[in-house]
Amino acid sequence: MQRQARILLIGGGGIGTIVALNLERGAKARVSAVLRSNFETVTRFGYTIHSVDHGTLSGFRPGEILSAIPTVSDGVEPFDYIICTMKNTPDVTKPSLPELIRPAVTTGRSTIVLVQNGLGIQDTMMEAFPSNVVLSGISLCGSTESSPGVIHQIVPDELLVGPFPATHRPDMQQYEERAIASATDFVARYSASGKTSCHFDANVPMSRWKKLVYNATINPICALTGLDAGEIRICPGLLDHLVRPAMREILILANAHGYVLPDELMDEMIEGDPIELHVEPSMLVDKQRTQYLEVETLLGAPIRAGRSLNIETPILNMLYYLCKGIQYKTQRMISERDKN
Amino acid sequence: MQRQARILLIGGGGIGTIVALNLERGAKARVSAVLRSNFETVTRFGYTIHSVDHGTLSGFRPGEILSAIPTVSDGVEPFDYIICTMKNTPDVTKPSLPELIRPAVTTGRSTIVLVQNGLGIQDTMMEAFPSNVVLSGISLCGSTESSPGVIHQIVPDELLVGPFPATHRPDMQQYEERAIASATDFVARYSASGKTSCHFDANVPMSRWKKLVYNATINPICALTGLDAGEIRICPGLLDHLVRPAMREILILANAHGYVLPDELMDEMIEGDPIELHVEPSMLVDKQRTQYLEVETLLGAPIRAGRSLNIETPILNMLYYLCKGIQYKTQRMISERDKN
Repeated sequence: MQRQARILLIGGGGIGTIVALNLERGAKARVSAVLRSNFETVTRFGYTIHSVDHGTLSGFRPGEILSAIPTVSDGVEPFDYIICTMKNTPDVTKPSLPELIRPAVTTGRSTIVLVQNGLGIQDTMMEAFPSNVVLSGISLCGSTESSPGVIHQIVPDELLVGPFPATHRPDMQQYEERAIASATDFVARYSASGKTSCHFDANVPMSRWKKLVYNATINPICALTGLDAGEIRICPGLLDHLVRPAMREILILANAHGYVLPDELMDEMIEGDPIELHVEPSMLVDKQRTQYLEVETLLGAPIRAGRSLNIETPILNMLYYLCKGIQYKTQRMISERDKN
Repeated sequence: MQRQARILLIGGGGIGTIVALNLERGAKARVSAVLRSNFETVTRFGYTIHSVDHGTLSGFRPGEILSAIPTVSDGVEPFDYIICTMKNTPDVTKPSLPELIRPAVTTGRSTIVLVQNGLGIQDTMMEAFPSNVVLSGISLCGSTESSPGVIHQIVPDELLVGPFPATHRPDMQQYEERAIASATDFVARYSASGKTSCHFDANVPMSRWKKLVYNATINPICALTGLDAGEIRICPGLLDHLVRPAMREILILANAHGYVLPDELMDEMIEGDPIELHVEPSMLVDKQRTQYLEVETLLGAPIRAGRSLNIETPILNMLYYLCKGIQYKTQRMISERDKN
């Protein structure tokens, strides 16, 4: 029998917990999870999970629970995969993500899987670990942590995994072969539970632009208005005057970069989940919880990708600066809270 | 000695209370105040007021405290002035403001003073009461009610009072004479306390466009981001990329309608209050309290004034639709609350 992969999972919130549960249930991986805010609760009681894929269960614990990133040189066995599922907020997070995970990375061996949204998230990672494979993970799962250790997964898990483009690398062909092999192996392990849908993603940039049609538009508009993704559809005027015009800017950007997305994608994204599910996009949840928004990866990066081709994006720009305003307020509130 | 004017004041929040206090202190008016949320508290204990103009006082009660709009035909003595200081949210408020105050209006006698922001607020009022004078009141006072009956006035009271244009009236000249006399009388009574600054406003539309430079821009941007008017000045990028471009759209609209406002007005508005005062514009306060925003009078009306001249206002439009999103959410929350 194939050896279990040793996986380090960073971020045990809504998505991360479902990733851990699914991998453990498939039995082709053993997950060491690094938890922060819910470490105490999960260590004592395990997770309580209400999942559309796995049913309701209580007391779930990943194979190993850690309170900090482990250092592999300290006699800790190397990790085959390091999965990052936490928020990606490079504008406000210190140390940077690569510096954070560096102690756990075994050069030439650990594959880094970024289950995070947005554009350009691989750049600093590939630069920091040139001998390691960096994979893209796009999760279509809808899951939130309502209180520490309590997870509600209301949208089925669907995960796309594939290599980020390596066109800038001198060893491009060799790297791509390794990356494809690594992604294929990961997909097999993730699919082993039989409960989820995990596919190899042969065109990562296309998939990421596609997801931005939702994430750069509905996400910030929900955060700014307080409406959920269902309410956005019934609030008079909002779709025609704001949501679709913003989505169109993403289509234009994607197209200009060679990724042709059909107009119909806009309405597919808008109508993705039933209204009555009241899906709250991640930025709305972050806003409600006074957490940082993924504004640079979801809005800043596509805007800059447009600027590099002299394409203006007035609506995305406005959403960006308004979200940066929220981010600034959050920084002040967190710094105020930390003082007390 | 001149007879005291009999004044009905509708809205006893931050601004209304200072209006009542100032008029009573001047002794040239007796104020009957219609209170809603704070009626019980103020009836029992009076107001506690911390005022930059009037000092700190407790137990202040207007001459008369009412829980509802009085009906003048029921043996109630006619009112010389009816001052409206409550929020103006025609998109979500039923009955309309004219219908609300109708029972208290004595035809041909009561002057209606709208101490409210925005454009076009006089239209329905002048139509409903063609035999009555309708005056514009623009308050530059900064005052909020922190809890029922507790008022903090942190920016000095300054009130501009003048007639709305009557160019559409067949009896224009005659009406204007009456309106000017009425406004002059009101200014004298309001100035009698010696504690405040109250002036006759000879160019109401100009004053209203001028105030919109702040109210159509900083107001919604604060509501959307959570930043106060001081923080907006130090949040990187916000002034250059959002606040000033939005202000410029108002300048263009005002200019097109014949009211030339200088560019310097933008920075005057931005730098109006010291950063450390942390002034919270009314829309931000309304958002925080799950109250309706004055989105139609502050944003909808100027946008429509632009559309009538084929002037596009892309930034104001976006702020408008985002604020309408907040408004829709508030409607849902209030309707949910009322069910329980």
